[in-house]
Amino acid sequence: MKKKISLRVIRRISFYYEALLKLNLPENTYISSKKLEEVTGVSCNQVRQDFFYLGISIGKQKKGYLVKKLFRELKKILSIDHGARVVIIGAGRIGQALSNYKLFKARNITVTALFDIKPELVGTEVGKPGQQKPVLHVSQLEAYLKENPDIHIALLTVPEEAAQETLDMLITHGVRGVVNFAPKILKVPKEARDVQLINDCIGTSLYKIVYQLYSRK
Amino acid sequence: MKKKISLRVIRRISFYYEALLKLNLPENTYISSKKLEEVTGVSCNQVRQDFFYLGISIGKQKKGYLVKKLFRELKKILSIDHGARVVIIGAGRIGQALSNYKLFKARNITVTALFDIKPELVGTEVGKPGQQKPVLHVSQLEAYLKENPDIHIALLTVPEEAAQETLDMLITHGVRGVVNFAPKILKVPKEARDVQLINDCIGTSLYKIVYQLYSRK
Repeated sequence: MKKKISLRVIRRISFYYEALLKLNLPENTYISSKKLEEVTGVSCNQVRQDFFYLGISIGKQKKGYLVKKLFRELKKILSIDHGARVVIIGAGRIGQALSNYKLFKARNITVTALFDIKPELVGTEVGKPGQQKPVLHVSQLEAYLKENPDIHIALLTVPEEAAQETLDMLITHGVRGVVNFAPKILKVPKEARDVQLINDCIGTSLYKIVYQLYSRK
Repeated sequence: MKKKISLRVIRRISFYYEALLKLNLPENTYISSKKLEEVTGVSCNQVRQDFFYLGISIGKQKKGYLVKKLFRELKKILSIDHGARVVIIGAGRIGQALSNYKLFKARNITVTALFDIKPELVGTEVGKPGQQKPVLHVSQLEAYLKENPDIHIALLTVPEEAAQETLDMLITHGVRGVVNFAPKILKVPKEARDVQLINDCIGTSLYKIVYQLYSRK
């Protein structure tokens, strides 16, 4: 049975993985939870708890976790070897920022193309020199997904008015996982219950901080 | 006593508020939870539950919620009248995308300036024509905050290596609320326990989707 892993745990696991990448330790050395705390900011107690939960045990001599083993397990959970090729629907500022997000690369996630309907964007390339991605018209998406049957995930950064219909269209074309960044709670149609959807509105944390600081007591 | 309102509830409240702005109904009309579901995607049951929790009651004749009253209450919770002026530390792609985020405007949040250390960014202006914001050097931040004593909030989009020291520096200069977008869990120093911090790493939702779809069962 597959364990249910929450978003918070996935976040921490991706931090651990990135820390290992950065530290670049020899495979047969050990890393302590204290060291991982130092690099990721996650408390060493939490580190140990997470690894225990994931079934990653500490080395015999309590030197810490064997780097080789840790790498292998974290990679497995994050599907690093499998990788993921994703498209972005909406080539505005947020879409463009995500298209070159450097941490996606570390986690073996590749943005292959962006889609939009604005004539001034369609047909252009966006992103840093050497890492540019094409912006195609949304009407080309169906054909694009047929040509690239390994793409199952889309990031949605369209305006909220268009978000639900775009999600429905993506599902029709076979997309199986969507992160919606628009400020609207989208819903997966009943007939597509296996589709994974996360509503992740950017900016909500800021409203929370504003509330904490300024709301009348 | 001030109610503790969670991030999820704050998110929904900001959706309700934005829906009211968009619908632009006369003040003395009513809006139903069904209508709010239609616009925000939040189920009408959840809408009613949220309003009940917030002490916003339905009109006498069960026509729905009086627009005037609803506006007033939501504004109060989101501190719309107070507004918020914020700075962004890190003028890379994510920082620039956030600097012009249109929904901040609807919620009366103004990004006044960005700060960075890169010579090619410092001294420039970023953003859409007519809404451009200056990029200043991080060394100017202290003076800037002294000149603008109403700024208490910063959005942090610096690389994770620099994130904790930047947070510490912000707190030293009097910042009281921070949203950290870098992929590292930051901590508020013990002596500054009243500082509000939210760690909101962009992209985590995507790793979660990748995990759901591709992780070995």
